[in-house]
Amino acid sequence: MDAGTTDHVDLAVIGSGSGNSLVTPDWEGKRVAIIESGAFGGTCLNVGCIPTKMFVYPAEVAAAVREASRYGVDAHVDGVRWRDIRDRVFGRIDPISEGGKRYRLEGENTTAYLGRARFTGERTLEVALNDGGTARVEADQIVVATGSHAVVPDVVRESGVPFHTSDTVMRIDDLPPRVLIIGGGYIATEFAHVFADLGVEVTLVARGPRLLRHLDGDVARRFTEAARTQWDVRLETRVEELTPSEAGEGLVDARLSDSTRVEGALLLVCTGRAPSVADLDLPAAGIAQHDDSRIVVDEHGRTSVPGVWALGDVSSEHQLKHVANHEARVVAHNLVHGDDLRSFDERFVPAAVFTRPQIAAVGATQEELDEAGTEYRVKVQEYADVAYGWAMEDTVGFCKVLAAPDGRLLGVHVMGHEASIVVQPAILALNLGLTAAETARGQMWIHPALPEVLENALLGVVDPEN
Amino acid sequence: MDAGTTDHVDLAVIGSGSGNSLVTPDWEGKRVAIIESGAFGGTCLNVGCIPTKMFVYPAEVAAAVREASRYGVDAHVDGVRWRDIRDRVFGRIDPISEGGKRYRLEGENTTAYLGRARFTGERTLEVALNDGGTARVEADQIVVATGSHAVVPDVVRESGVPFHTSDTVMRIDDLPPRVLIIGGGYIATEFAHVFADLGVEVTLVARGPRLLRHLDGDVARRFTEAARTQWDVRLETRVEELTPSEAGEGLVDARLSDSTRVEGALLLVCTGRAPSVADLDLPAAGIAQHDDSRIVVDEHGRTSVPGVWALGDVSSEHQLKHVANHEARVVAHNLVHGDDLRSFDERFVPAAVFTRPQIAAVGATQEELDEAGTEYRVKVQEYADVAYGWAMEDTVGFCKVLAAPDGRLLGVHVMGHEASIVVQPAILALNLGLTAAETARGQMWIHPALPEVLENALLGVVDPEN
Repeated sequence: MDAGTTDHVDLAVIGSGSGNSLVTPDWEGKRVAIIESGAFGGTCLNVGCIPTKMFVYPAEVAAAVREASRYGVDAHVDGVRWRDIRDRVFGRIDPISEGGKRYRLEGENTTAYLGRARFTGERTLEVALNDGGTARVEADQIVVATGSHAVVPDVVRESGVPFHTSDTVMRIDDLPPRVLIIGGGYIATEFAHVFADLGVEVTLVARGPRLLRHLDGDVARRFTEAARTQWDVRLETRVEELTPSEAGEGLVDARLSDSTRVEGALLLVCTGRAPSVADLDLPAAGIAQHDDSRIVVDEHGRTSVPGVWALGDVSSEHQLKHVANHEARVVAHNLVHGDDLRSFDERFVPAAVFTRPQIAAVGATQEELDEAGTEYRVKVQEYADVAYGWAMEDTVGFCKVLAAPDGRLLGVHVMGHEASIVVQPAILALNLGLTAAETARGQMWIHPALPEVLENALLGVVDPEN
Repeated sequence: MDAGTTDHVDLAVIGSGSGNSLVTPDWEGKRVAIIESGAFGGTCLNVGCIPTKMFVYPAEVAAAVREASRYGVDAHVDGVRWRDIRDRVFGRIDPISEGGKRYRLEGENTTAYLGRARFTGERTLEVALNDGGTARVEADQIVVATGSHAVVPDVVRESGVPFHTSDTVMRIDDLPPRVLIIGGGYIATEFAHVFADLGVEVTLVARGPRLLRHLDGDVARRFTEAARTQWDVRLETRVEELTPSEAGEGLVDARLSDSTRVEGALLLVCTGRAPSVADLDLPAAGIAQHDDSRIVVDEHGRTSVPGVWALGDVSSEHQLKHVANHEARVVAHNLVHGDDLRSFDERFVPAAVFTRPQIAAVGATQEELDEAGTEYRVKVQEYADVAYGWAMEDTVGFCKVLAAPDGRLLGVHVMGHEASIVVQPAILALNLGLTAAETARGQMWIHPALPEVLENALLGVVDPEN
């Protein structure tokens, strides 16, 4: 492309994750630009939800083997073929990403710009192409869907030691003997699960007093207890010094604020993610941002600049793919129905953490209700008290239901086997505004299947005697 | 008890399974008789749903170990400790059954009669007590909840060979080298799963052209295919001759109608269950029965005789514990609210089969809709096409949604990992009369969790292009 010309398009989408789904049949016969500086498909496909779960599953299998003797089945793990796992995952994902790029490059009405976009005006962009050139794009409408990226704390950056984030750690060649994970959120704990259950010693260092502390207090507390039986968990602890280790290439030695040392570990930084706005020069377009740098959007996905929209991690307070997908569906409609705008419905955003035990939740936590001064009833039902829990000899799982005094559901929190599946009927019930009694008694629950733990929790919040 | 006297009670319940839950606080200060000839707690607790799942789970664990290498985790089973499994199961269940009996024997307002009841009039019973005596009970109201029992075909009975049913096979001392299972329904297939995955060679002989043929045709067909890879499945086949085997005590040799032989196998009969009415002398009370001997009840649980009720397997067309529980809740209310009767709601009865793959379903099958001439749309969504299915490298699972032309859900059928959990939101949606679109888009679905297979099936039936 000639640096002197400007391409005019009907729609420009910056980011090929959830933004990629905006190219609906409504755009046939029009011009759409997709601008992507990295791998096509965004975080979820390339370095997030999807590949992590493809590592989590083998980890669960390995854990199941190690736990088998509890059930009268003596078994053992002979070995873990890390490269085979890795190559299976990326052998599947990389071609999908490549295919998505090709599809846009060769699309009848799409142009893929492979490079970094920055605003030069309200609806004008300059793209620093990966191959060295520059493109200028003027669009009737622009959607910013650049997502988020891993944040790396100064102590790591400044130490100069080799480290990984979720962007790179899934592609390592060999499992290290030990992993030092900094962070206590869902990314830190999912990777701790993967590495520990594949046989790596895991030390996890977190600043807070509990892991997953954004979750309901009972969940965070009980998860932290369970995690302590699996990993070396250091709470209220910081990494104070990092040095290259003599134990092997790419490994580090660390001094912690509790005066202990961790030696010969692969360093994995999971200290949060920030919206990817640095290159965009949002001020050049006058696009308003929150204090945490997220783009400000209204309930329709509109930024402060007419014709410019944003969705997903770059603007959402939820860093969740299903939220981004929802926002993309709403924005896809709104882009072509300016006189009939739809709104985001984020009243009940569910989330899961694919750890062992697994966690899923929807609606308010008990702490949020306390803080808001909302009255509630609560019931905690143990997996161990329903028949399927007996079959699993379960000792850790539970389902917690919070409901208003009139029975209306406020929040449901599940920790245990397949929590991410068990929680789904509660998501529907919350969205429909059902009471605990309507949800429990408005349907049959297969006996003796695991959802009985949710049924019983719902009944328990109806009648605290239960 | 003196044979000459008659005990008068307010309520007599025959059967301590679901019937046992009828003793609500409404009966405080009144007299309730519970009559039970066998183990307290009924089929589900003692020989049905609950213990079978406690064997199924170790079988799943053993299967997971054997399949682990698919995921890059090399593992193997060193051995299966059958007696440990068995003793864990019954070490848990038997005390619950005993405790239930003691609770009723010593109950303030309950009398437990341990023996077989038969009607001598509309609301009078004679109980042949297990200890040899006879008791006479006259009741204001009687509930028949005697459940069902395994049927044994003539070819087995007349052969005189040793055999097992679901009543006895879970208590055997040692795993046999081979099991010959007669039957192709859910009990046959669940036991085939348990024994095969615990290392026993399984031959399953079924009369029909498919296993689980009461289920949706796609499910039955694809399950039968999957079963053939795990067991020696003989369809459209009968057992023609059974003789004691020289291979070991308690084992049999069999000649099949396909002219082959099965030798040295434990014989497990799973050819269906019939309502347990033989000892009751229902005609003496004038209680009407269906042709298949089930007691006729109306939607309130009333039999043809005033004051006599029935529930569960003895009267229901569903042999399912959650149906019996539902009927027990309705009857418990109706027993004390004669002027405000509640009705059974059995429009949408879900069921699961805990095989590998697992199966769950609710609502109509495609064949039922065809037979009724009901118009429908259908979508089959493969587990392999959603992200969690990728993680599991799934090749067999699927979710099938049937909906009316206006989108209203008619039936949902799931075969695959945790089907009994995946199906639950569909049960709620069917009961609420939701459309596929309302169910799919009225809530968020956690990405990338397994319920996305249901979400995508729902979307597919909305828009067949999906």
